[in-house]
Amino acid sequence: MALYIKSVENLTNEFRKLPGIGPKSAKRIVFFLLKLSNDDVSRLSRTLVEMKEKVKICRSCYNLTEEDICSICRDGSRDKKKICIVEEVSDLIIIEKTGEYRGLYHILGGLLSPIENIGPREIRIPRLLERVRDNNTEEIIMALNPTVEGESTAMYLKKILSPLGVKITKLASGLPVGGDLEYADEVTIGRAISDRREL
Amino acid sequence: MALYIKSVENLTNEFRKLPGIGPKSAKRIVFFLLKLSNDDVSRLSRTLVEMKEKVKICRSCYNLTEEDICSICRDGSRDKKKICIVEEVSDLIIIEKTGEYRGLYHILGGLLSPIENIGPREIRIPRLLERVRDNNTEEIIMALNPTVEGESTAMYLKKILSPLGVKITKLASGLPVGGDLEYADEVTIGRAISDRREL
Repeated sequence: MALYIKSVENLTNEFRKLPGIGPKSAKRIVFFLLKLSNDDVSRLSRTLVEMKEKVKICRSCYNLTEEDICSICRDGSRDKKKICIVEEVSDLIIIEKTGEYRGLYHILGGLLSPIENIGPREIRIPRLLERVRDNNTEEIIMALNPTVEGESTAMYLKKILSPLGVKITKLASGLPVGGDLEYADEVTIGRAISDRREL
Repeated sequence: MALYIKSVENLTNEFRKLPGIGPKSAKRIVFFLLKLSNDDVSRLSRTLVEMKEKVKICRSCYNLTEEDICSICRDGSRDKKKICIVEEVSDLIIIEKTGEYRGLYHILGGLLSPIENIGPREIRIPRLLERVRDNNTEEIIMALNPTVEGESTAMYLKKILSPLGVKITKLASGLPVGGDLEYADEVTIGRAISDRREL
């Protein structure tokens, strides 16, 4: 092609690897960057490397942090007797936004999956057991996705955590607030009926 | 907010400045980058700076290039007597993709706009006149967008280029190929009627 410019193609290909960016958006972004000042582009470039250098994983709960221990684990006002188990940091962020939870977290970084060879060690379960024992945790809240992997990981955790005398709960299933019965699937409605509460 | 991690926020803000990337996509991209290897992230960072360092503007037509003169201007097989006038490099790319045109280009980099103080000097018109004179250009093809600014820039160019004895044409207006009369707007249909051709 007459228009092939190597460094432009290279950058377009790099952007295409990012989630949600297709060939057209990648091209659009590259043209946008071509018009920016050198300073603006080198700031983006520097910020990228900086983030990668600075962001570490919390030694206690595996949340993201720039210190050894994340801001949630460090926060003295939080209830250290509760641990909420989530798959990813993004799930933690969603729960934090609700403002309904003031305990700690444990980020698994994945779900058990025999097919993909993901066992308890791969999803940080040994460290969870350590934490529960060392801190006399009173409640574990399972906040895993209601998928087959999520539910079976929750069942496995229940089995190995129950002997430690800790209370195990999970997020309620049911109708979304503001949702419409007509548009909910049958499994969700079924759960909402079996988990019904007194008014 | 308990979750504020400076380097993550900085990078999210940088990505939000890119076209087509909102707050949610920016966050998604940053989480994706956090999971990549250091090598992958530093390659992206390096490619960014490299592109900015290497890509220059063609001294003749203002196309993008890594040399002094772009690959189209250098191409001996192209018709040097024709210049197609476009607003942006992205327009050039679209025309090149059709494979219908084998002449040269001139990238204005903008359109005349008295309100925004964009005059002939700002959109590289002096260099266009120089090129037309020096190369005995025979035809100028206007490929500007059919907007008010596009049409008035084309009219201005016609006025100053006509005295040089060069033939001036513009892209045909009419119905899109495969389009439906019912969905075309009246102005387009009107143009299609006035520009009708013998079958």
